Parts: sequence; structure tokens; C-alpha cells
Amino acid sequence: MNIIEIINKKRLGKILTKEEINYAVNGYLSGEVKDYQMSSLLMAIVLKGLTDHEIITLTEIMLNSGEKLDLSNLGSVVDKHSTGGVGDKTTLIVSPIVASCGARVAKMSGKGLGHTGGTIDKLESIPGFKVNLDEQTFLEQVKKVGLAIVSQTANLVPADKKIYALRDVTGTVESIPLIASSIMSKKIASGANNLVIDVKVGRGALIKNLKDARKLAHLMIKIGSSHQIKVVCLLTNMDIPLGNNIGNALEVREAEEVLQGKKGNLTDLCIEIATQMVHLSLNISVADAKKLVQENLKNGSAYQKFLEFIKAQQGDINALPESTYHYEVKSTKKGYINDINALTLGELSMQLGAGRMNLTEKLDYGAGITLKKEVGDMVEVGDTIMILHTNKVLDNDFLKTSAFVITRVKPKPLPLIYEVIE
Amino acid sequence: MNIIEIINKKRLGKILTKEEINYAVNGYLSGEVKDYQMSSLLMAIVLKGLTDHEIITLTEIMLNSGEKLDLSNLGSVVDKHSTGGVGDKTTLIVSPIVASCGARVAKMSGKGLGHTGGTIDKLESIPGFKVNLDEQTFLEQVKKVGLAIVSQTANLVPADKKIYALRDVTGTVESIPLIASSIMSKKIASGANNLVIDVKVGRGALIKNLKDARKLAHLMIKIGSSHQIKVVCLLTNMDIPLGNNIGNALEVREAEEVLQGKKGNLTDLCIEIATQMVHLSLNISVADAKKLVQENLKNGSAYQKFLEFIKAQQGDINALPESTYHYEVKSTKKGYINDINALTLGELSMQLGAGRMNLTEKLDYGAGITLKKEVGDMVEVGDTIMILHTNKVLDNDFLKTSAFVITRVKPKPLPLIYEVIE
Repeated sequence: MNIIEIINKKRLGKILTKEEINYAVNGYLSGEVKDYQMSSLLMAIVLKGLTDHEIITLTEIMLNSGEKLDLSNLGSVVDKHSTGGVGDKTTLIVSPIVASCGARVAKMSGKGLGHTGGTIDKLESIPGFKVNLDEQTFLEQVKKVGLAIVSQTANLVPADKKIYALRDVTGTVESIPLIASSIMSKKIASGANNLVIDVKVGRGALIKNLKDARKLAHLMIKIGSSHQIKVVCLLTNMDIPLGNNIGNALEVREAEEVLQGKKGNLTDLCIEIATQMVHLSLNISVADAKKLVQENLKNGSAYQKFLEFIKAQQGDINALPESTYHYEVKSTKKGYINDINALTLGELSMQLGAGRMNLTEKLDYGAGITLKKEVGDMVEVGDTIMILHTNKVLDNDFLKTSAFVITRVKPKPLPLIYEVIE
Repeated sequence: MNIIEIINKKRLGKILTKEEINYAVNGYLSGEVKDYQMSSLLMAIVLKGLTDHEIITLTEIMLNSGEKLDLSNLGSVVDKHSTGGVGDKTTLIVSPIVASCGARVAKMSGKGLGHTGGTIDKLESIPGFKVNLDEQTFLEQVKKVGLAIVSQTANLVPADKKIYALRDVTGTVESIPLIASSIMSKKIASGANNLVIDVKVGRGALIKNLKDARKLAHLMIKIGSSHQIKVVCLLTNMDIPLGNNIGNALEVREAEEVLQGKKGNLTDLCIEIATQMVHLSLNISVADAKKLVQENLKNGSAYQKFLEFIKAQQGDINALPESTYHYEVKSTKKGYINDINALTLGELSMQLGAGRMNLTEKLDYGAGITLKKEVGDMVEVGDTIMILHTNKVLDNDFLKTSAFVITRVKPKPLPLIYEVIE
């Protein structure tokens, strides 16, 4: 096999064989295929595409590059995934809801790069919380509590890890086939047989429009079905931030608040995701699943499950860290909040210490943003619209923000969920 | 400047600014832009293209990455370039013809990778021949003899050198904008003000069809004119090998034969190229130039110029090396030779020792192929169709070849020159 011939073939838009994809992926893992050859091939894939058959093959080969978790002793297990957005703490909320309904959630999560940490970073902001459990302990906790969330093992889809790191620095992230195979290889390796995926659409997300989101959803469902995994995709709005808090410990706190009864777009989205997870996992109708989810949220059993889960992994929810400084950002205009730019706030949050550009940087777990106003709210000049939490001393420039658009006319409410595809 | 943003921009088919192209090229030279980022950008360029303006800018930036040769004291100087083909020894023939007509040829050439060596390798096969002259000696020889050919200096368009090496291993060679800027940056840096380019078209060439060849020609003429360089492109057939000999010393020998009066497609092509060079350089009509070229070829003054040139650079033309072994390949069929596959013979020639895959490999200067039959010739079973020259002991497999197609019907003659574009 010759990698240059494989690159040339894809450059000309031809279909690669299983042997060729295998050589490219495993040759790259072994070092026989060089970084500069893989990035050239990836760009050719981004621009010339892959057929569904090539994508399924690529996923299979990536999946087989590492160890797979065997959850077969646990029966029906459900997992969720989000394609990522600013302030997305849904995993922390839906997992205990779903477990409180009697479904089993055995979840492996990753650390995050960019605006805020990943789910694992958020959990690690809880003092004492253990994200590295051995397999035995992990499986036992899922059996006992119905829920465990651990850090991805080093050998979970190593091909994806290496390829993703390269895509990140070579302008080859935005490709639906590559996104689909990256997500699905990790999720299949994680062992669940039911999967709900929150495909974020909009300015603050990787996927900018509904057409691409639908394509990605159908592709992931197809890959799932080739591995006997039931997949449901929710296409959801990511033009504005989800909930009010951005930042690791701040998001844990908000998760707690939602489980204690706080209302809003975040709560609504969590109910929808949890409903789909329960529907798949317990094999009951969507209507029945939703009723169960709403009940368990209302009667506090979802919150009790959250506390039980945190305690099982030795976290102390009452000791969440707080940053030293709190800066109030005030409105300089009167009117309705018409728009909040999630991406701008994400970048600001990173500057405050809540996110990182590479995995060696330390996070400030208490840092982040709490929004005091939402889209549709009326504000007066001087009203506090958000609070910045940080251990850094900020200069005044930080207190001016372009993230809020304030207008005279009250905006129409934005749709939260565009579509459910299964 | 951020290289990822530049890659993303080109991935989306947008036009890069001068600053962005400059950052990519010079950042790559300095090491700030990594191999894997440059190869990703190159693939995006191959698939999304460059505007003429971007190509002229890229050429300019590459050109300025190193030293330029100043030939202004020599007056009108003419250079030639070939996009490369199997058995292409035209430089060795046309340069003395043109110099014998009173034009000046100051040429820098490269070593070759692949089927046979480059012009410099061919000249180095002549015992004693010096390819490294200091600038002063080089310029004086051009003044005195009318002709000098030296090895490209290390600092001639270093950006092209580094980028070309990367393209070679990342499947990004076949791109008309990249080919045009690579050729023209080197030719402009070499200092001539008249340039004839032989664009090879066909199976044995980089450019496979006339449409692409025309595009490349127009592009190079445009780049040339932006630097006050007159460029003429000949689009010529590269489906079959040029002349009868393939291999370094074997090609020098054939060049000598042509200058001594041997006829054939090689001679015809050399007359056309030399005519265009004389036409541009002496500023006379094409008809007058052709008459002069034919006269000087006939009366031996072109051959005398060849001997003068070889002697000036200390080569001993009477001491050309020969390989130890000579294997005759015989026809197993009776009929007309309908086709000779140049690429197959090129690869065979490399296996015999005439070419190399990387510049550290040593060449066998005497190795190569002499064709005993041409397209259109009638052969009987057992007739020798070619001789393999090598220092290796060959097994019988080498004596079977798929390079010749023999048919009952005599083939129509192939066009040698498709078009002249200026």
C-alpha cells in the first residue's frame, strides 16, 4: 500500500477500499503514514467527501484501533452525547433524571478544549470527585446507583484521538463524515446500546445550519444501526447560551438548581433529552417516558439520584470552589435583550480561566459567567446583565461587551428544539 | 496571522490576501507553519484553486524567498524549460543550436528524481564536466561561448524547494496553479528575459490533456509578462518516448548524434524549440529563426558549439561511461509497432540504475535503454526491439516487456507539436 496513491485517489473523488482506509488510519497510528500525509488526506476527504459505506468502514476501523468496554452484563444501557456548545451542562442533569427513572447510564466522558471544560472537568470541579474508576468499580456503581461517569480510558479509540488532534490544527474539523465517525467510534467503543445525541445547531456550534445537522444525524443513526445501537438525534438551537451559567463549578451549581426545580430553556431541553433516553432504554412510549421524567424531576427523586451519584464518586457538592473576584457587567442601553452571542461569551469565559487551549493548562474551576438577563428580558441602563467570576484582576475593557444586542422591540421566542430524528 | 484561519478560508474557496499567502509561505520556510498545516493548505489549493492574481502573488513571494541571478549585463538572454518527460534531452541539443545562432543561453538546471536524471545529472555523466561554476565564471562563459549550464544554487527559490518536496509526498503535485508558480518562480529567479517552455502532454507527462496544458501555458505567459519576461509555450506530445535513448550518458550520446545530423521526432522537436528561442532572443521572425536554426544544424556550427560548451566546462565527451551488461529485448510478435509506453520504459530505466527515488541515491550514468524500433516500424518475431544497459545482472523477467503494442495495421503518425502559444 502506498499512502500517496491513496491521497491521489481521494483527491480525484474516488471511493477508497476498506484496505486503503485501514492502511491510512493504522499506518498513521503506527507512524508509517506521516502527519503531513494524513492532513493532506483529511483535507481531500473534507472537500471530496466520503460515501456512507466509506464512513461506516472508517468508523469500524477507528473503533478497532483500541479497547472496547463490554457492558453486556448490564442489560439495556443508555448514553448521551452533545456535539458541544457554550454552557452545555445537560449531561450533569439528564443522567440522574434518567437513572432515577430506572434506566442505566454508564458514561465515559472527555476533558475539554476551548471555552469551558468538558463534562469531566465540570465533575472534577467538585472537590473529591473521582473520575478514574477501575472497570469493576465502574460497572458495580452502574448496577447499584444506575449511573456512573468516568474519564475516557487512554486506549479508547486511539486513532480518533490522534486524528482529532491533527484535524484541530489543520483546518479539517468541519466535515460531517469525519465528525460522524469520530463521535460514533467513541460511543460504540463505550458499550451502550441506546444513544441520544444532541446535535447543536447555530452560531455557537460546530454545525451552523439545519441541513448539515440533518445530514449528520442521519449518518450517525445509520452507523449506529450497523452496530445494533438505537440512536435518536435532537437538533437543538445553539445560537444563545444554554441556561445562565458558563464555567465548570458554576455549571455544576446550575445543574443542581435545575434538579431542584429551576425553570427555563435548559430545563426544557433536559426534559426532552431525558425523555428520549428513557424512551429508548426502557422501551416505553415517548409520552410515557416524558411523564415519568417530569414526575421524577418534580418529586425530587432525580435530585436525590444526583446527590447519590456525586457521593458514590466521593465528591462533596457542598464544597464547590468560588473565584475570588466578581465583576458586574452593566447595561449601557435600555430595551429588550434581542440576542446573546454564545460564542463571544464562550471566548470571554476562556479568558476568565474557565477554559483552556491545550490540555496541559490548569483550569480555574470557579471561573466563568453568570447571566442575570435572558433573551426577551427588559433592561434599564445600569442594570447588571452578567457577573464575571475569576481569580484574575480584570481591567475595564472586560466590562464592556459586545455579546448582548439590545433593541426597542421585544424579540420573538427562539425555538429550542428544531427536530427529533430517529 | 493564524494559519488555521488561512487554511479554513481556502477550504471554503475564498481568495487569500497577499499577507496571508506571504505568512503561509514564509511561515513554512521559518518553521512557524508546520508540514502538516502546509500540506493541508496545499490540498485545499489543489481542490479549490487559486485566482490568477493569487498565483502571481504566490510566485512573487516564492521568488523573493531567495537570491536572484542578475543577468542584466548580458543583454538579451534566453532560457528554456520542459515540464518533464521520459528521455527528454532537448536542453542538451537546443542550447548549443541557439548559442550557435548568436543568442545567449545562461541556464540553471536541477538534478532529477524518478525515471532518469535531470539535465545536471546528464551533464555530470560526462567525465570531468563541472556543474558548479561561481557566478563570475558562469557569466564570463555565457559572454564568451554564448552558453553555460550550471546546477541551481542552494538559495534559488528555497520556498519552492521546500514546498515541492512536501507536495511530492502528499499527493499535491497535480495542480496547475502550483505547477505554474513553481516553474515561473525558478525561471524568473534565473534571470533570463526570454523563455520557451515545452509543456509535455500525455501519458508519460505530469499534464495528461490539452485543456490543462493550455491553462498552464496561459498562466505561465501571464506570470512572465508581469515580470517583463517574454514566454512562448509549445504543447508537445509525450505519449511515446522522445528519441531512442533513455538514460544519462545514453542521452548525451543521442544529443551528439542529433547535432551530427540524425533525423527523427527528437530532431524535429528540437528545431521547433530552438526556433522559438532564437525568434524571441534575436527578435527576428519565426521563419527567419527557423532557417537559421536549420542551417546551423546542417553546417555543423551547432555541433561545434556543443563541443566548445562541453570543453569550456571541462567535460570529456569522448570518455562517456558505458554499463557492463547489454541485454537485448526481442519481439515475440510480428507486426507494426503501434505504441510504446513512455511511462513503462521510464520505470524500467529507473530499475536499471538510470534514475533514483531520492537525491542521496547514486546513479549508474551508463545505464538505460536504447530503442531499436520506433512507432510505425515493422517487426518480425525475434527482432531486437530494445537494448537494456546496466551494471546489474538481470533475470529473464526484465526481458519481457509490456511497453510495446504490436498490431497488424500500420498506425497513423502521431502529432509531435499540438500548439504554440505565446
